[in-house]
Amino acid sequence: MSEKEFFPIETIRHSRAHLLAQTVQRYVDPAAQLGTGPWIDHGFYYDILFGDGITFSDKELKDLTKKMQQTAKEPQTFVLYTSPITDAYAINDLTNQKFKNELLEKFAARGDTEVTYYLNVAPRAVLDNLRGVQEGYQAMYEKVTQFFVDNGTIDESQAVLFLDLCAGPHVDLTKEDLPADGMTLDKVAGAYRQADENNPQMTRIYGLAFDSKENLKVYETMLEEAKKRDHRVLGKQLELFAFDDEIGPGLPLWLPNGAILVEELETLAKETEAVYDYKRVRTPHITKSTLYYKSWHLPYYEEDMFPPMELDNEKYYLKPMNCPHHHKVYAATPKSYRDLPLRLAEYGHCYRYEDSGALFGLMRVRSLCMNDAHIYCTEDQFEDEFVKVIEMYLYYFQLFGIEKYQMRLSKHSKEWLGKKYVDNEALWIKTEDQVRRALEKSGVPFVEAEDEAAFYGPKIDVQIWSAIGREFTLATNQLDFAVPARFDLTYIDTDGQEKTPICIHRAPLSTHERFIGFLIEHFAGAFPVWLAPVQAKIITVADTFNDYADDILKQLKVQGIRAEIDHSGDSFAKKIRNGEMMKIPYLLVVGQQEMDNHSVNVRSFQDKSQTEIPVGEFVERIVREYRERSL
Amino acid sequence: MSEKEFFPIETIRHSRAHLLAQTVQRYVDPAAQLGTGPWIDHGFYYDILFGDGITFSDKELKDLTKKMQQTAKEPQTFVLYTSPITDAYAINDLTNQKFKNELLEKFAARGDTEVTYYLNVAPRAVLDNLRGVQEGYQAMYEKVTQFFVDNGTIDESQAVLFLDLCAGPHVDLTKEDLPADGMTLDKVAGAYRQADENNPQMTRIYGLAFDSKENLKVYETMLEEAKKRDHRVLGKQLELFAFDDEIGPGLPLWLPNGAILVEELETLAKETEAVYDYKRVRTPHITKSTLYYKSWHLPYYEEDMFPPMELDNEKYYLKPMNCPHHHKVYAATPKSYRDLPLRLAEYGHCYRYEDSGALFGLMRVRSLCMNDAHIYCTEDQFEDEFVKVIEMYLYYFQLFGIEKYQMRLSKHSKEWLGKKYVDNEALWIKTEDQVRRALEKSGVPFVEAEDEAAFYGPKIDVQIWSAIGREFTLATNQLDFAVPARFDLTYIDTDGQEKTPICIHRAPLSTHERFIGFLIEHFAGAFPVWLAPVQAKIITVADTFNDYADDILKQLKVQGIRAEIDHSGDSFAKKIRNGEMMKIPYLLVVGQQEMDNHSVNVRSFQDKSQTEIPVGEFVERIVREYRERSL
Repeated sequence: MSEKEFFPIETIRHSRAHLLAQTVQRYVDPAAQLGTGPWIDHGFYYDILFGDGITFSDKELKDLTKKMQQTAKEPQTFVLYTSPITDAYAINDLTNQKFKNELLEKFAARGDTEVTYYLNVAPRAVLDNLRGVQEGYQAMYEKVTQFFVDNGTIDESQAVLFLDLCAGPHVDLTKEDLPADGMTLDKVAGAYRQADENNPQMTRIYGLAFDSKENLKVYETMLEEAKKRDHRVLGKQLELFAFDDEIGPGLPLWLPNGAILVEELETLAKETEAVYDYKRVRTPHITKSTLYYKSWHLPYYEEDMFPPMELDNEKYYLKPMNCPHHHKVYAATPKSYRDLPLRLAEYGHCYRYEDSGALFGLMRVRSLCMNDAHIYCTEDQFEDEFVKVIEMYLYYFQLFGIEKYQMRLSKHSKEWLGKKYVDNEALWIKTEDQVRRALEKSGVPFVEAEDEAAFYGPKIDVQIWSAIGREFTLATNQLDFAVPARFDLTYIDTDGQEKTPICIHRAPLSTHERFIGFLIEHFAGAFPVWLAPVQAKIITVADTFNDYADDILKQLKVQGIRAEIDHSGDSFAKKIRNGEMMKIPYLLVVGQQEMDNHSVNVRSFQDKSQTEIPVGEFVERIVREYRERSL
Repeated sequence: MSEKEFFPIETIRHSRAHLLAQTVQRYVDPAAQLGTGPWIDHGFYYDILFGDGITFSDKELKDLTKKMQQTAKEPQTFVLYTSPITDAYAINDLTNQKFKNELLEKFAARGDTEVTYYLNVAPRAVLDNLRGVQEGYQAMYEKVTQFFVDNGTIDESQAVLFLDLCAGPHVDLTKEDLPADGMTLDKVAGAYRQADENNPQMTRIYGLAFDSKENLKVYETMLEEAKKRDHRVLGKQLELFAFDDEIGPGLPLWLPNGAILVEELETLAKETEAVYDYKRVRTPHITKSTLYYKSWHLPYYEEDMFPPMELDNEKYYLKPMNCPHHHKVYAATPKSYRDLPLRLAEYGHCYRYEDSGALFGLMRVRSLCMNDAHIYCTEDQFEDEFVKVIEMYLYYFQLFGIEKYQMRLSKHSKEWLGKKYVDNEALWIKTEDQVRRALEKSGVPFVEAEDEAAFYGPKIDVQIWSAIGREFTLATNQLDFAVPARFDLTYIDTDGQEKTPICIHRAPLSTHERFIGFLIEHFAGAFPVWLAPVQAKIITVADTFNDYADDILKQLKVQGIRAEIDHSGDSFAKKIRNGEMMKIPYLLVVGQQEMDNHSVNVRSFQDKSQTEIPVGEFVERIVREYRERSL
């Protein structure tokens, strides 16, 4: 026997999807109509339209998981079968799969002449043993088996247990390559066929799949922790943001507590960008369509945009990105080489159309406010500028305690120059080398991906992991060779000639929506002092200490600390509980002893300590933590 | 003879408009079709459709002004004539005025049965003397005169020189009541009849009119000064903002220099509002139409709004005001009496539709960012809250050196309670008294206006005058009894009952657009240090002093001062000129002497002084001026 082969996790997940559909046909509904069943992050799903009278809900997941694990223990091999597309309809008929015929039509329309199937093949006895398990399943696969025996794909000692129109790849042998307990089915949702509301709604069964039971467990634990840190739940509890039906889905309202997070992040970005000599601009949220035809947002990006407003015989659009507006700021006054690099920054509000089903708390919204900037520079300045952008990322990572991160450099492919990529090989190679050197110099972990760049330049995606190990896409940096020329952006060089700069798009703090969504999970809502909506809350043990509390409050407020006194009239214990529920960094308890000692009893949310310290010392400490943005 | 009567300036201006039309008929075109001719701020205009082949342009203004002044010296009296509306068509026929017939139809449609004319009547000889001056005029007014002699309005010693369908009032006698040289015609523009693009374009002739030559002169001098301070010209020169055809009219781009003004104003507002315990929020720029039906923006305010975007079978609108969004923030979490007064603040971006012809630099735009806040409080808290709002205004007036200002309290009218005004007389009286007391307490000059309130509460308009004496409408404060109930805004009172707060709308710093437009004129673009885009510019007398200049730059930048070195390579004299053209508060000249003395030679833009002072002393001074926001 050959050595055990290790398959990529995506292949394992894809094979799991086929097993899911097979198990459904075997044990739930042999007449189930199959949609698509891809691998996804952490697992897989399959869209299934059950026959009349059959419903499938969360309750059935546990039982189906068990059955899938049993199925995986069988010695099923994945066998590739290639068919002329014209013969494939007959194969779909064997299992009565109408949706697969739709796929064939799509493939034929784009000119394919052959299609591939993957068959799950096992010793004949396996199919025999399934007789009577579920009405119809055995009979259906007898027919399928006969078909493939007749055409010589398998011999008579074998049987087909499942087949799917599929390009693969798959594992070889289920019982060896799929760790039986490395998977579980985790949820059921509705999904329109091909995401089109006019199509029937199917049942989407989701599963998690890993290469071992241990790794599945790690992920499940993380999910459980993530659930406790769910930004939608904490957002409500901490009164950070709200959605309103009369305003519309995906349009968050930042409540006062949330607005503090927003404004502290903006202050951070402005301070940091000032150090790097960025200039700030402000641009309107709408524009005539003319601008977007020039920038190629129209018509290519139109479906991700809000629909137009018709005005004065023009179409106006909400901006989905700030770039074209910034290019117009560049163009508004003449530029010389002395003005470069020019770094134009804006916390810019953009609007993008997302299907209402895809909206998710702050992580997937329709209005977003981006930590945006565009750097206009020469080719020779690019590497330095890029190093500085990475420096800024690393500063932020350290500030927020983000310990795991990775960048992904997407490059051009020589083969597609002039088709998928701007036709300037020298510039691609030069700038990709510059990015690589910049990444190496900065010591940032990174991977490279051939043939994944944008049309107009290499692109760098940034992934970060939250404190509980969940992965988030933070931002994309993009080098753009093409847009400055399209916008006639020029500068007068040292030699008096008019030249065209290149442009870097960057947004290290992402959007407020996505980044605050991440921070809520990352900090479990217990923000460090500098971000905390209320930084300190004073709780008196009795009303007689109110004057003393007022005095402390004044000392804190004069230093710009967001402090409050709990005047609620609740019991002392309730006040403490409320303060903890709001995850306030410091609760300051004051009574006779504290008043006598000019002190406060500090309860720290972070380390749960209780310490009596002089008021002045506490003020100094919290001010220092605020100024230094300590974690 | 009776004592000389003094007429309100509006009456003088209105009478001037009639004289303008008369003079046009007499000397330019007897067949001219007259549109409307009202008084306006500082003067009057008349819309005129000239006959075929007659054009009227700026060149003719001087001559027509002279002729108008002569006409005014004639002893013309304004005589009121009342006519049944059915007979008025015949009067219009006498002078062949078709547009006036349109007006008659409008009056008839609203049920009027009588209309009034004002006739300019003079001794018979005046008309006789005009024989042959302009073909047709004399003949036309012979007919008119005969008509009014026949019906007994005038006797045979008199003649009519002009008549107009008009409700008045007017002065008595031109040569006594209209100071001949207290007027001048100042410009010509095109204007569609009844502001409707489908109607013919008419010629609008504008005039200035005052009660004396001296006051006209004062105003003209101010206009000339205002021209030098034109915010559109200075905005370009100082690179503050730009408009772009591909983005659209009325949508300013704030360039880096302008964005500094914007952000300094926001910092000021945030600091000031923090002192007054405002809470900041952030709200999206769009909403479903549902919200605007609830707030009554739809359908009543629809024509001032951008058209809708159709999405997911809903209409979405850009917000023309922030109020409804803030009400939703209030409603997002339960409130108790302890939460009141609740002051929600946002620099909120709004979009309003203005006719493209009405757009004017920053003063009339389609996108605007407002220093907005809504204060939710009880009736009893209102007076205190209003005093604090006025306090804030007064603080800003002092900070910006605004020495002349006035508030106007618009009140309800008992007669219209329940029709034009919310039907709660006690509440109107109580709150109007509170506003009056607040204004008196604060020592703010104010006037009161009966029957000019909004439907839902008294309103306070704020007028300010720029350094050159030009009047600007800054902002409106509005008390709102009605909206909190419409939005189901409630709080639990001390007695455990659910009650409804009232709401104050306020925006002391207006919109960025309008306020910065005002500030540019007010400061003639020479902003005080705290607002200046570049606060200090270092100019070396030779390159050998570059290191010394760098050293000074560092000392300034570390203190947060917006300082630069002029590295342009221009001559010393040109550098100084450029610095002055950009109105930079301090130019710091450094050469051998300054380096030896560790000093800078400070050229102040404000007082044109040149003083050598130690670097440390200058740094201290400019930092103090920045921190203190000195003028």
